[in-house]
Amino acid sequence: MLGRGAARALGALRGLRGGAPPARSLGLSRRLLSFKKVLDKDHFLPKPCWGKDMRRLFDQFTKKCEDGSWIQLPSYEHISSQRSQDFSAFIHAYFPSASEVINEKLSQAQLFTRGFEDGMGFEYVMFYNEAEKRIVCVFQGGPHLQGMPGFFHGGATATIIDATVGMNAIVSGGIVMTANLNINFKSPIPLCSTVLVNSQLDKIEGRKLFVSCKVQSIDEKILYTEATKINFPPMHHLFAGMMGERSRRKIINNLNQ
Amino acid sequence: MLGRGAARALGALRGLRGGAPPARSLGLSRRLLSFKKVLDKDHFLPKPCWGKDMRRLFDQFTKKCEDGSWIQLPSYEHISSQRSQDFSAFIHAYFPSASEVINEKLSQAQLFTRGFEDGMGFEYVMFYNEAEKRIVCVFQGGPHLQGMPGFFHGGATATIIDATVGMNAIVSGGIVMTANLNINFKSPIPLCSTVLVNSQLDKIEGRKLFVSCKVQSIDEKILYTEATKINFPPMHHLFAGMMGERSRRKIINNLNQ
Repeated sequence: MLGRGAARALGALRGLRGGAPPARSLGLSRRLLSFKKVLDKDHFLPKPCWGKDMRRLFDQFTKKCEDGSWIQLPSYEHISSQRSQDFSAFIHAYFPSASEVINEKLSQAQLFTRGFEDGMGFEYVMFYNEAEKRIVCVFQGGPHLQGMPGFFHGGATATIIDATVGMNAIVSGGIVMTANLNINFKSPIPLCSTVLVNSQLDKIEGRKLFVSCKVQSIDEKILYTEATKINFPPMHHLFAGMMGERSRRKIINNLNQ
Repeated sequence: MLGRGAARALGALRGLRGGAPPARSLGLSRRLLSFKKVLDKDHFLPKPCWGKDMRRLFDQFTKKCEDGSWIQLPSYEHISSQRSQDFSAFIHAYFPSASEVINEKLSQAQLFTRGFEDGMGFEYVMFYNEAEKRIVCVFQGGPHLQGMPGFFHGGATATIIDATVGMNAIVSGGIVMTANLNINFKSPIPLCSTVLVNSQLDKIEGRKLFVSCKVQSIDEKILYTEATKINFPPMHHLFAGMMGERSRRKIINNLNQ
């Protein structure tokens, strides 16, 4: 599940569908650049903690962006304090047991994949190919993502998959939430290695978006993990069980502002 | 996927199967206590960052442990430096592109769910019921686990599920690795809330262990997420595609020491 901040900014990308010419893509790239300026920190720019493989792949895909066939996607770290307050009010309204501690903690909210020191957790950069409806995420996992000693935790692998296929669904179909995530772990991924997360929009059936994903070694010779994900665009469907109709509408209106 | 350090210590628990009397369970509890002493930090003891719900549920389940029907499971944060070096050697042998940076980073290896400041990430405690072959994990998620603003990231939910069902499989069947994790997200989980992760060993078929899981509100009225997980005990099965037979044997021997 990805944040709405990124989702809103990426809404523009959907205009690319239907074989957009390179010139138009470059226009969108410029809009994305202006969006990047309002972010607290852009994690999609090279950092000193990136290893050789990560830098090399970043350079390769950045070069592919020059003709507009690929677009580098932005990232973010925090949500705005206003949106944090909106959600805090929502949580208090529907979860009366929530204490004041929650209010205080929500002000510290941070995207899960960005809550680590540089190089210790998730270092990744995503590139989108509109014609092929796919995302390549170059991912370097840090030493704080360990499960079995020397290898990534299954939850860390699930997280980078969720982030990548979620972004693919958002770029291709708008605001979505994950309905199902099915992961086959083929081979453990060595800690601190850099891998490719290849995500592909397979089909859209009614309101469902089907996205598949492969996590591979950078030479694509080792298939570490395969996954499929189903997304539903309407957020209210998922909230439906938690609140009455009137309250639900209010939340949806707030979300759509 | 869970670390072997915890797995080895928990191996003793498997002796409980077959209707062990309370007296024997208490003996095992003492052994677990001695194991806790060698851990860098025991995250399964109450902390100031725990909220009221987390503390109340911890007290409830701790009380249930008094007659031996439930056992509180230990946790850990780091692996030993020796084991870290073993795995570092393994990674260098099979991934020649790995640089010296990796060696340095492996010394900083940390369990994924413990790489956060207190209260910011995963706060959880697990209790095991041998007769029912199930684990209840009381989980309080911090503000650094955010996906959609105000709610947990799908990857964070997947992580606590993976940790809980992985532990259930280890306690019930020995060393395992995840083969498949299938998650249905029913409703988003509000950030900073405390939930129950109920995991159950459903069946063992040959080498496969089938475990299911539900993430629910603490009053069990809201079902947030359902999941199934299939585990394979033999680690060499998963390594098979990565190396030759001789090297594989060497690694397995090291792991079994």
